[in-house]
Amino acid sequence: MPQPVNIVFIGAGNVATHLSKALQDAGNKIIQVISRTEQSAKILASDLNCEYSDDITKINPDCDLIIISVGDKQIHEVLSKLRADDKMIVHTSGSLEMNLLSKVSRNFGVFYPLQTFTKNTKVDFFSIPVLIEANSDENQDFIKGVASEISSDVRVISSDQRKIVHLAAVIVNNFTNLNYTVAEYLLAENNLPFDVLKPLIMETARKVMTERPSQIQTGPAYREDDETILKHIEILSGNLGYKEFYEVMTKAITYHKKENEKL
Amino acid sequence: MPQPVNIVFIGAGNVATHLSKALQDAGNKIIQVISRTEQSAKILASDLNCEYSDDITKINPDCDLIIISVGDKQIHEVLSKLRADDKMIVHTSGSLEMNLLSKVSRNFGVFYPLQTFTKNTKVDFFSIPVLIEANSDENQDFIKGVASEISSDVRVISSDQRKIVHLAAVIVNNFTNLNYTVAEYLLAENNLPFDVLKPLIMETARKVMTERPSQIQTGPAYREDDETILKHIEILSGNLGYKEFYEVMTKAITYHKKENEKL
Repeated sequence: MPQPVNIVFIGAGNVATHLSKALQDAGNKIIQVISRTEQSAKILASDLNCEYSDDITKINPDCDLIIISVGDKQIHEVLSKLRADDKMIVHTSGSLEMNLLSKVSRNFGVFYPLQTFTKNTKVDFFSIPVLIEANSDENQDFIKGVASEISSDVRVISSDQRKIVHLAAVIVNNFTNLNYTVAEYLLAENNLPFDVLKPLIMETARKVMTERPSQIQTGPAYREDDETILKHIEILSGNLGYKEFYEVMTKAITYHKKENEKL
Repeated sequence: MPQPVNIVFIGAGNVATHLSKALQDAGNKIIQVISRTEQSAKILASDLNCEYSDDITKINPDCDLIIISVGDKQIHEVLSKLRADDKMIVHTSGSLEMNLLSKVSRNFGVFYPLQTFTKNTKVDFFSIPVLIEANSDENQDFIKGVASEISSDVRVISSDQRKIVHLAAVIVNNFTNLNYTVAEYLLAENNLPFDVLKPLIMETARKVMTERPSQIQTGPAYREDDETILKHIEILSGNLGYKEFYEVMTKAITYHKKENEKL
């Protein structure tokens, strides 16, 4: 068993909430939660049974690890005020450089759990990939040890690679949720319930657990069924944004079909 | 128990394969498979242990129900040759009008199972919505009876409504698989494995089983995090199609955010 680690969380949002609980359940001690508002720090800290603060300069000196889990926009402000005293410090962002942290400590890295978190919805951390990076082999071993306590899928990747993974994650998560949203609006406008799509949504995701998505594309765009495509564009013609969305997606499916045929 | 029905299938593709087996398992008799090529008819017919043909004019006269399950492009050719002799006839298309079938029979309707089917992958038909329509109350009762044997979710909807549902299905299925494909390419170009995204893909789908997608959107576009968006566009700048795809999706997420805020 690895030695339990004393952890300070900076941030009290969805990622901080889920990650801190998973780390605590694995036997570590969350000793402090610091957040911009005392109220949000207090809510998480009471769950974790630890101290809290809204003052970033008051890091508990007993910590072995500081985890910054705030929005990408907030991190610069956090770093400008933070005194980390060469404590081990990581951020949990998919898109930010690791080296941002070099300003505040000589021991730093990244701890990026690749999942979407919702408050009040428990996730099984064990299957979530944790993408880590560190500024030295020793620090990497330390971060890997902590990550391996909560996940069976810990991967070391560089900041540049992580940016690509983050972009891919935005596409399969945020853009896919946009597809669901467009469908929700379209159905609602026609007094049809969204739930009719649920089995299809699950099966579409399930399929790519075993198949390469590029190899299983179907639908009117892939079949080059122009009659159906034109009917769809006509349905959407009252909303120029939707029409453009449909046309760009259709074009992209055709593009990938041609790319595939080249192989 | 409803009376078993003698069924002829026209078509031997994915929908015909899965639907015929489900109907047979429910106690009906598939008496014939007709397909454009004798070979594809034979493969399905041997699974079902029934006769087969590539001649659409040779419908087995003992049938109670003819199910046309061919591509939307093929149906006009099928109908131009078919002699249905006022047998009950349905098609399984999401986007085609029911009334197309009025040319070949006085008893007709639609039997549209809303799911994506893959050969060699068994699906649980029971939870799949079957959207039905018929040209009379009596015929509707008959189709509903057959559909209810294989699905717990049978809904009567009009051809106009079905077109909307089909478009929504294209968006959540084909367009979402496109998202997965773009991510697959992007990762492959950077020597990163697609499997890192799998837990995220499943969770993104799972979330909308209980939440409205419009209410749970996240990500850089939703947060209006222009710094991250610009970084992403820069990564994609080598592929104008991807860049356009990213920009249109980002714009659509912003649009929905503003629509939501109006409510």
